[in-house]
Formats: sequence, C-alpha cells, structure tokens
Amino acid sequence: MRRVMAVFAYDGKNFSGYQYQDGQRTVQGEFEKALKRIFKEETESYGAGRTDTGVHAYGQVITFMVKYETMYDHDVKNALNANLPPDIYVRFVKTTEDRFNPRFDATRRIYHYFILNQQEPDIFNRSNYWWFPYDLNINRMREAARYFEGVHDFTTFQKRTKGKEKDPVRLIYRVKVYGFKGNRLILVRVEGLSFLRRMVRNIVGALVRVGIGDWEPEKIMEVIKERRRTASSATAPPEGLYLYQVDFKPVDQMHYINTSLWSETELLEGKEWFKAFG
Amino acid sequence: MRRVMAVFAYDGKNFSGYQYQDGQRTVQGEFEKALKRIFKEETESYGAGRTDTGVHAYGQVITFMVKYETMYDHDVKNALNANLPPDIYVRFVKTTEDRFNPRFDATRRIYHYFILNQQEPDIFNRSNYWWFPYDLNINRMREAARYFEGVHDFTTFQKRTKGKEKDPVRLIYRVKVYGFKGNRLILVRVEGLSFLRRMVRNIVGALVRVGIGDWEPEKIMEVIKERRRTASSATAPPEGLYLYQVDFKPVDQMHYINTSLWSETELLEGKEWFKAFG
Repeated sequence: MRRVMAVFAYDGKNFSGYQYQDGQRTVQGEFEKALKRIFKEETESYGAGRTDTGVHAYGQVITFMVKYETMYDHDVKNALNANLPPDIYVRFVKTTEDRFNPRFDATRRIYHYFILNQQEPDIFNRSNYWWFPYDLNINRMREAARYFEGVHDFTTFQKRTKGKEKDPVRLIYRVKVYGFKGNRLILVRVEGLSFLRRMVRNIVGALVRVGIGDWEPEKIMEVIKERRRTASSATAPPEGLYLYQVDFKPVDQMHYINTSLWSETELLEGKEWFKAFG
Repeated sequence: MRRVMAVFAYDGKNFSGYQYQDGQRTVQGEFEKALKRIFKEETESYGAGRTDTGVHAYGQVITFMVKYETMYDHDVKNALNANLPPDIYVRFVKTTEDRFNPRFDATRRIYHYFILNQQEPDIFNRSNYWWFPYDLNINRMREAARYFEGVHDFTTFQKRTKGKEKDPVRLIYRVKVYGFKGNRLILVRVEGLSFLRRMVRNIVGALVRVGIGDWEPEKIMEVIKERRRTASSATAPPEGLYLYQVDFKPVDQMHYINTSLWSETELLEGKEWFKAFG
C-alpha cells in the first residue's frame, strides 16, 4: 500500500461541482467510480479544494491509496485515464508520503479567470471564458487588483448563504491582470494561501466594475472594509474560472512538483498561452 | 420584401448536421425556428453548403426573405441572435439580390481542419480539434497536400454510401498546411469550388497517413488514380472541421464581402489566430 497524488484537469461544464453529492454528477464522484473500477473496492480520495458547478480545473490535486505493489505511478495514470470520462484528464501521478493531505498541506492555490472582452461572442469557447462585451480598461483593473493583496477580512467577497466560514480573513499573495490578443482576452490570476467560497469570482466581479469605469480603483479598499457582500459587485460567472495550480510544502518527494503550464516569464512576455490547457 | 444573406457560425457538437431532418436537432431546423418566431410564419432558407454531424462552421451563409420594411440588416442580425440557441451566432446580415442563391453562386468554399498533435489531450477543446497523439511531420504533409490541388476525380475521397455524386470531378484551388504553437496545432486549409461528401475529412485522413510516415507524399497521386474509397486512409473525425468561408460572384452588393477572420499574411506569419473564432 502506498499513497499517490494525481494532478488532473476537468471541464466543469457538465459537473455539479467537485464535491461528492448523492444523485449528482460530480468530479469526485466520477473519480471515485474510476478508482473503484480499478481497485475493485471503495477507495477514499482527498482533494486540494472544492470547485463550484461549472468551474474548471487544470491542476486539481487528489490523493488516494494504491494497493497493487506492481502498479507503477504511470500505470495508475493510464488506468485512471482509461476509466475516467472524457471531461476529466489525469496529467500525472506521483507517489507521496502517507500523511500527505492536499487540502491541509497546500501553501499556495492559483486560480485563473478568463474574460473574453469583445463585442462578438466566441461560441466555440462559450463554456471556457466569460464573454463580457463592454470595454474594460485593463490598467484600471491592474491598479485595483493590488488592493486585494495581503491579509484582509474578505467578508465582502464571500458567498452570502451556506458555506460561510467562521474566520473570513485570508492571505492573498498576488492578483495579476494579463492581456492577450490585444487585450481582447483578459486573464486575472489570483494566488493565495486559501480562499472563501465564491471569493475569486467575487473579486473578478469587482475588478470588472472598475474596468468599465463605474468604480475608481481605490474603491476596492472601501468595499473590503464594508464587510458586506452587497457592498460589492455581482459574482462573475463560473465558466471563466480554473483552479490552475496548487503548491505544497516541500516534504519528501513533493519537494518540487511543477504543476505549472505557464512560466512567470511566459505570462509577462504575453506569450499566447492563453488557454488553460493545450 | 427583400432578400438578405446572413453569415453565421455554429458549434456542430450538438447538431445532427446542417440540413433539416424531422425529429433531429439540426442547424437549419433551429435557424428556421428562429425565423418563424421573428416573422410569425414559415420562412424558407437556403444555405451555402451542408455540414455533417459534429462539423462546425465559422462562415456558413444562409439567405431568406425579410418582409418587414422597417427592419434594417442589423435589426435582423439582432433579432436572429436573440432567438437562436447559444451554439449558433449570426456574425452579420446584408441585403442582397433577389436571385442570390448561396449554393449556386459560390465561387470558393474554404474549410479549416484543426489537428492537436501532442501526447496530452486538451479536454477544454475536445470538440474543437482532432486530438492525434502520434508525431506528424508537417513538411511531408505539405508536400502531399500539393497533389490534391487542381481538377481531379475524387471518387477515392468520397463517402461510400448514400450522398454519392454522379460526377465526382472537383476543382481544388489550394490545400495548405500551417503549424502553430511549435506545430502542436496543425491547420489544414482546403479551398475549392465545391466538394463531395466527407471529402475534406478524407483528404485530412490521407494527409495524416503521410504525416506519420506510413505513406510517401507521392502516394497521394496513386490513391487518387485508384478511384476506390478503400484505397485511402480512414476519415478524419468531424470535431476538427469548420466551414470557414464562402466567397461569391461579384454581383451587386455582394461585390466584396469579407467573411475572413485571418488574412493570408497572418496565416503565413504564423500568427496565433489558431482558433476559428474569437
């Protein structure tokens, strides 16, 4: 018996979110079905973070026990991909420590949010980007993004109903805004230790309000201080959001796990790696 | 009463092809439903070309009569987009001659076929590209492509069962192969006066056989001469194919209709406009 971690992507369109729910098609549900088919018994899995209905992942992380000694990591990868539906794809599998828990050992979570900012929709990517047809000023959004960085009480950016956390204080390392294709495709990259429910989509909603000129960038400071969901803008829709990468403490074999597709340099150079995958 | 033409895109994934079929979800069926909602009566429409199940269009052309004098072309566009499902999008509408028929007046049809040539799939574009995980040599494909150009009997590249044409001779202006993202994304662009059923997908199937090194480029000449479907390679799947553009005789207002997203220069410079739309 050994513990492995799998880094995997999914297209959130046809899932009722990540977490298992009776009678619903969920990512965890499909993953555990595949594990059961491979190992002929119920196999518990632990993910790094939940995602809501319609939200995607490029680098979700899951861990589970492998009971077959003769099954190498790449065999586990291949067995999973042969048994998972076409909207889930395991990118790699790695043996890890027994005590590894992706949720609690994560030191950084990176979310990517894509906004297609042009008058015409892109029907071939309608479940991959948020189509927003009114002009956004990317420089104003960049200015506003800075105010989210650091340790703040994010009550204003938390889902109002169920799933509320007792402690709404979160550490955000960075919020960066990148423009591709002459700024017709905008990427908001949010990096933090952990997040409240709907937090990234609510941050993007506020940035868009600044981008259309409705709010000054400094307004963000104010709405954070208000500590009321209604002080801010509407939630951005799920189709633009990707759980892009999760980083962990440097323990054991996990010391360096490159779950990144885009290097920092590539992003800054504006290389057109603007899709989360491929 | 006046005749208009609409240039429109659709995501073929959830359609049983372009042409109306009783009890099936087809592009023409959905389009005529929208026309009926707008004009409160059955309105006949004529398209430039049929596409098979799962095949997309960026620049399909359709024509129909508009009975409301006060409805401008852009009103027709907006009314259509408000009444069409999210997988069809009308890019523009233009008043044309009464006698205009997109099928018979077309002088050039351009198809784009996208192959994702890398080991890992791109689950977010699984219905937009053909994922082909074995190494393709793009230069061999380019050499082979030349043999399709000109006037040939394309029996070898015609669908074997129903829909066979009496005259299998077709004029192909150009077949070009472009590589993007370090050749991980390959675009085969086929331009011709008209096409047989499955012809583009069968051409792509043969090019891929050359690309993997199974056939020499000159083999294409031979298989064309064989005039048997079984002389060539398997049909490429529908998800990579787009009816990209249709050009017409320079009559009346149709004199210059730019239905193109990519200029020749952009293509040749390898600019990363590698998606058909957006």
